Amino acid sequence: MTEAFVHETLPQRVVFAAGDARSALEGEVIALDARRAMVIASDRDGARVDAIVAGLPDVVRHTEVVMHVPVEVAQRAREVASQAGVDVVVAIGGGSTTGLAKAVALTAGLPVIAVPTTFSGSEATDVWGLTEDGVKTTGVDRRVLPRSVVYDATLLTTLPTDATVASGLNALAHGVDAMWAPRADPIDRALAEEGIRALREGLLGLVAEPRSDAVDDVDRTLYGAYLAAVAFASAGSAMHHKICHVLGGMFDLPHAPTHAVVLPHVLAFNASNAPDAVARIARALGADDAVAGLADLRAAVSAPSALKDLGMPESGIEAAVPRILAAIPADNPTPVTEHALTQLLRAAYEGDDQP
Amino acid sequence: MTEAFVHETLPQRVVFAAGDARSALEGEVIALDARRAMVIASDRDGARVDAIVAGLPDVVRHTEVVMHVPVEVAQRAREVASQAGVDVVVAIGGGSTTGLAKAVALTAGLPVIAVPTTFSGSEATDVWGLTEDGVKTTGVDRRVLPRSVVYDATLLTTLPTDATVASGLNALAHGVDAMWAPRADPIDRALAEEGIRALREGLLGLVAEPRSDAVDDVDRTLYGAYLAAVAFASAGSAMHHKICHVLGGMFDLPHAPTHAVVLPHVLAFNASNAPDAVARIARALGADDAVAGLADLRAAVSAPSALKDLGMPESGIEAAVPRILAAIPADNPTPVTEHALTQLLRAAYEGDDQP
Repeated sequence: MTEAFVHETLPQRVVFAAGDARSALEGEVIALDARRAMVIASDRDGARVDAIVAGLPDVVRHTEVVMHVPVEVAQRAREVASQAGVDVVVAIGGGSTTGLAKAVALTAGLPVIAVPTTFSGSEATDVWGLTEDGVKTTGVDRRVLPRSVVYDATLLTTLPTDATVASGLNALAHGVDAMWAPRADPIDRALAEEGIRALREGLLGLVAEPRSDAVDDVDRTLYGAYLAAVAFASAGSAMHHKICHVLGGMFDLPHAPTHAVVLPHVLAFNASNAPDAVARIARALGADDAVAGLADLRAAVSAPSALKDLGMPESGIEAAVPRILAAIPADNPTPVTEHALTQLLRAAYEGDDQP
Repeated sequence: MTEAFVHETLPQRVVFAAGDARSALEGEVIALDARRAMVIASDRDGARVDAIVAGLPDVVRHTEVVMHVPVEVAQRAREVASQAGVDVVVAIGGGSTTGLAKAVALTAGLPVIAVPTTFSGSEATDVWGLTEDGVKTTGVDRRVLPRSVVYDATLLTTLPTDATVASGLNALAHGVDAMWAPRADPIDRALAEEGIRALREGLLGLVAEPRSDAVDDVDRTLYGAYLAAVAFASAGSAMHHKICHVLGGMFDLPHAPTHAVVLPHVLAFNASNAPDAVARIARALGADDAVAGLADLRAAVSAPSALKDLGMPESGIEAAVPRILAAIPADNPTPVTEHALTQLLRAAYEGDDQP
C-alpha cells in the first residue's frame, strides 16, 4: 500500500430498476415516510414524469430548471418547497435538475431522491453548485447528498447517440481523475476501475451494430457512471476537471463534450508518472496500455475530438493557461508547466492525437 | 447487467494509519466530540493498549472479553458503560472484542471506534452476535456498525504466521461468499474482487522469504480484509458461511482455520454455475481459473487443509448434513443435495483436493 489514508464512505441507497422507476420511486418515498413530494423536472420531460410520479401520495411539480443553478432559480424553488410544506424533493432529470434539488436541500434540510436521466453522476455526490452574476460557487455539504438514487435505464434509451457518448465519456472522466485527485485512495481507485470497466462495456454496446439490448447497455453505463461519480466525490477534483471547469466557464462550452475532448490529453500527460492509475485504467479498458485503450474506445464510439468544434476561440488557449495553472492540484502526477499545458490545450483545440 | 438490485452503502470512516494508531484514534474520538471512552481490550493486549489510548482525554478500561459474546459478559460491559457515563466505546482487539463493543452499542446507542488486531472484518459490518446457554443469536442493527475503524498494521506484525494465514483466508472467504450470497449485487462483487486481490498479494508477501516489508504486507491484507467484509455485510451469508457456522457450533472448531479448510471445496462446488463470480475471483487471484488460483495461494501460504486436524469427529459429517442443508440459501449457484454435501464435507474432513 505504502500510503496512509482516510476514506469516508457516505450513506446512500441506490436502486437499479430498469423499466420500473415508478414503483422503485414509490418504495423510496415510503421508506422515508414522506407524505408530500416536490418533484423537480423540466417541462421537456413532462409526460414521462407524469408516469413516474403517478404512485406518489401528494405531489407538487416544479419545472423551472436552468443550467448551473442560478441563485434566483434556487430561491424560487426553495419558496415553493417551503410554502407547499413538502417533506421530500424528487429530482427527475440530468445534472441541472439534481443540482436544483440539492440547492433546496442545502437550506431546507429536506431529503432528496434522484431519478437521473443522464450519466452526469451528480446524484452520487455531496457537492452543490450555485451561480450568481455569472460566477459559480460550489461547496460540499452532507445534506445535499441524495438519500436514494433510482436508476431506470429505459429513461435514457431515447438519448441521441452523440449525447449518450459525450455524457458517458464525461462519466469516464470522473473515474480517471479519481485515480490521482488530492484525496484519492485505493478504495476510490477500485471503485473507479469498476466504473470505467462498466462504462466501456456499456458504451461499446450502445454503438454496436446490430444493436443488441439497449436497456442492458444503458443499465451498465449507468452502473459505471454511478461508481465513477462515487469515486470522484470521495477523491476530489483533479487536473482534468480543473481544465474543463476553467474552459467551460470562460467560453461557455458544452459540458459533456468538453470533457470527452480533453480527457485523453490529460491521461497521456499523467500516464508515465501514475503507474498504479494507468495499470488500473488499462485493466478496466481491457487494454495493455491505458492511453491506447482510451483511444480505441473513443474511436469506437466516435467521440468528439476538438475544442475548436465546440466553440472555443483559438485565442482562448493563451487566456486560459494561467487560470488553469492556478487551479491544478500541486500533487498532480506530472508537474504542469505553462509550456506543457499550452501544448496540451493546443492539441485538444486542434483535435490532434495525444503524443 | 441483466439484474435489478438495491445496494445500500453504510456510512463509515476508515483510517489506514500504519504505526500511528494512537494519534489516529485520538483524531476519531475528537471528531465524535467524545469526552470519556470505554476501552474494551483483553488483558493479553494490556501494554500495547496503554500506548494506543494514551492520548485520549478520559478512559475507562474493560478487559473481560470472551469468545462469542456471552450475554452475561455483555451485560457487565453495558453496566460499566452506563455507570461510567462514557460517550464512546473503543474496541482494540479481534472479532470478540469488536463484538462486545457492538453488544454495548446495541442497547446503549453509543458510537463505536474499532482498532482491529486480526483480519476478522467484524468492524466493517452491522451484524451483532450474543450467546446464551450455548446458543448464538445474531442480528443486524445500524447502531452496531462502528463509526470509525483505525487500522494500524504494526499491531498485527507479531501475529504468528499460522494465525495470520488462517485469519487472512477467513477474510478471503468473506469475499468469495459475497459473490453469490442472497443480496449480492455488482457493487458487492466489485468490492469483493478488490478485497481478494489485496488479500492474495498481502498474504503472499507475508510468507515470502526473505521477508520484504511486513508492515506493508499486513497493511495490504487489512485493506483486503476490510473490503471483503464490507462486501459480505452487504451481500449476506451464503453456502460457505452456513457450513462453517454449523460445523463451528456443533464441534467447537477454531473459527478461522475452519473457514480456511472449507473454502476451496465450496468454490469448486459453485464454480461451474457462477461464471461472473469465478471470472472475478480468477482475475483477483491473477489466475486463469478461480479454483486453481485459490489452490495455488493455499499451497503458497501452507493453509490448513483438513477438518480432522481441527478436532472434528468423522461421525460429525452425517450429523451436520441436515442442519447445513436447511441453512444454505435456496438460490445457491449449484443446487445442494444431501449426497453432494456429504461428499464435500468428507473431502474437507480428509483434506482431499477438491475435484
